[in-house]
This record gives sequence, C-alpha cells and structure tokens, in this order.
Amino acid sequence: MEKDLKVKGVNVPKTKLGLAKMNKLIETAEKLFTEKGFFDVSISDICKAAHTAVGTFYIYFESKTDVYRYLVEKYKKRIKGILASSIKDCKTRYEKEKEGVKSFIKYAVKNPNVYNIIWGSLAVDKQLFEDYYVSFAKTYAHAICGENRAVSVEDYSSLAYMLMGITNFLGLKAIFEKLSDKQIDEVVENTVMPVLSKGLFS
Amino acid sequence: MEKDLKVKGVNVPKTKLGLAKMNKLIETAEKLFTEKGFFDVSISDICKAAHTAVGTFYIYFESKTDVYRYLVEKYKKRIKGILASSIKDCKTRYEKEKEGVKSFIKYAVKNPNVYNIIWGSLAVDKQLFEDYYVSFAKTYAHAICGENRAVSVEDYSSLAYMLMGITNFLGLKAIFEKLSDKQIDEVVENTVMPVLSKGLFS
Repeated sequence: MEKDLKVKGVNVPKTKLGLAKMNKLIETAEKLFTEKGFFDVSISDICKAAHTAVGTFYIYFESKTDVYRYLVEKYKKRIKGILASSIKDCKTRYEKEKEGVKSFIKYAVKNPNVYNIIWGSLAVDKQLFEDYYVSFAKTYAHAICGENRAVSVEDYSSLAYMLMGITNFLGLKAIFEKLSDKQIDEVVENTVMPVLSKGLFS
Repeated sequence: MEKDLKVKGVNVPKTKLGLAKMNKLIETAEKLFTEKGFFDVSISDICKAAHTAVGTFYIYFESKTDVYRYLVEKYKKRIKGILASSIKDCKTRYEKEKEGVKSFIKYAVKNPNVYNIIWGSLAVDKQLFEDYYVSFAKTYAHAICGENRAVSVEDYSSLAYMLMGITNFLGLKAIFEKLSDKQIDEVVENTVMPVLSKGLFS
C-alpha cells in the first residue's frame, strides 16, 4: 500500500490494523479483477476472499470503482516514483530519456499487471483512463519543456504522447518476449536512443 | 461485417439471411461489451438484444470469446486495410510513415471503440491480445526491413513497436482532445515526422 495516497471515495484508516485490513482488500481486489474482470467481481466476492466483513469494506471504500481508482493511482504513483528515481543523477534530457525508458520497461516486465489495471480502466471508467494519461502527459510535457529547449520540438504535449507510446509498447514487447534487464538495456541503447537521437531517416 | 474473415470458432453462413443474422449478433455484442464489459454480458443478453434465438447464436459462434475474437480480427483487418490504402501511392518509407500515422489517428478518432476492443482483449484472453500485437509488429517490421535499408535502424521488430506505440498514443490524444483531421495533419507534419526524421536532439 502507498502511504499518503489520497483518492476520492477512499478513506485511509489511521490505525495499523485498519491499514492492514484495507491493504488486504486492495490486494485481493487487484487479484480478482485481473483473474475475472472488474464487472464479474462483486464487493461481496472481494470481502469473502479477503476474509473481511462487507461492512468493513464500506469503511474504506465508497464503491467498487473506488477500489479500482485506488489501484490506478497506486500504479501512477509507483511509475512516477520509479521514473523520478531512475533519472535523478542524469544531467541531460538525453540521459533522462534513456534511463527513464529502461526503468519503465524493466518495471513492466516485473509487473505486467500494470497494463491490465491501466488499460482495463478504459472499460471500468473512461474518464479514469483519460485522466490517467492526460495527467501523465502533462507532467512529462512539463518536464521536457522546462529544460530550456533541450529538444528540437515545439509541441511538447504531442511529444509526450509519442514518448509514452514508445515506452508502453516496448514494455509490451519485453513482456511478450520475456526480455532480461540486459536485453532491455540493449534495445534502448541500440534502437530507442539512436532513433530518438538522430531519427530514422538520417 | 467483413467478407472472407476466417476466425477460429466462427462459422460464417453462406446465405444472405444467415449473414444478416450473424452481423446483427456481432454488432449487438460489440455494443454490449463496450457498455457493460465482456464478463458482464451473457450469450443470452446478446441474443435478447439482437432478437435472436440462443440456438441461432451457436450456429455461428462456438462461444462468447469467439465473438470477441471475431471483433479483434475485424479491427485488425480494417486497420491493415486503411493503412495499406493510405500508403498505396507513397514512394518512400518516409511518405509511408507519414500517411500511415495520419490515417490511423483519423480512424481512431472516428472509431474510438477500437481501443475498447483491442486493449480490452487483455482482460478477455491475454493470448488474443498478444497475438494481435505480435502479428501486427511482424507485418510492420517486415514492411520496414523489406525496403532495402530505408531506415537507419537494424532492430526492425523493436522499431515496429516504437512506431505502433507512437501511433496508438497519438490516437488517444486525438480522441481525448477531439482533434480534427486538419489538426491531426498538423501534429503529424510538425511534430511526428520531424522527430522520426531527424530525432529529438539534433
């Protein structure tokens, strides 16, 4: 469970026991959503599998969708944390892109469920899906444009979507092909960065 | 309905009446899957909404997943058709990328449901999702590498995923922001192609 994660419709308890109960519900819900799909899992199913009373569920969550929203926010926070930590020693935008792409793809291979939750949100609540990417793109575009024209492109928002697309789809490929960290480094250094750096047709 | 679309578990009828019935079931299923999610829709729901007997459903489809598989194959065929038609007069890989990206994004804005079906397949049947992208990437990589080193990259498969990612994520942005065809042309000509052509850091 993430500390200090504020999500609408979710009431984080103050006691250690309350946090443990809430955490158990979240973990169980994620497992069931992935196995059976959001719509085929009821609050009662989640509580039964987590050995928790239905009344307890409603102390922490206003609805089933709020648990899902919590999962999306959890992954958003984790991914942002991993990206931030991977680029903290990088001096240039080039280095930041390289380390950021590598760390996301490696995270995706170890947590393929991130696609189930994030892309699955399109079916659960379209707005949740849109908010996720709009917020991510905004932060990304801001980071790129804040660096005093570090890149030769003016439309930072479209560029952010392009870079998110590259990273997300290489994450898929790495999951499909079970790439090792070393293989991921090679793809990023030998293909991604040359394309990002000099383009395809130069 | 697509002509000549062969999908495992789907038996395309020979008569006009049969085709009309099958088509009605497919359209109804797509609408219900999008509204309620795959797992929350039963074969009986589909038949009821399509005013068709459940027995008739089983003449055409072996299971509910087979209808979904049909929808994924339908979009795959349509997208491939649109891409092929958009690049048919292009002489260079550069021109092909430009026209291909434009046409996919324009198609996505007019058919946002394509994301619900394709990305939703991850929850319905992981293998279906993986097969979709692996097959698409293979065709794409083959097209790029077949052109006598038209691009300055050796790992055609990773490059294909990068390009698919760019196109898919710009499609999302275009849907979120309700971009017009003219605005899409501008994003592709002023941002995508300069980045693909010369890179970010040149």
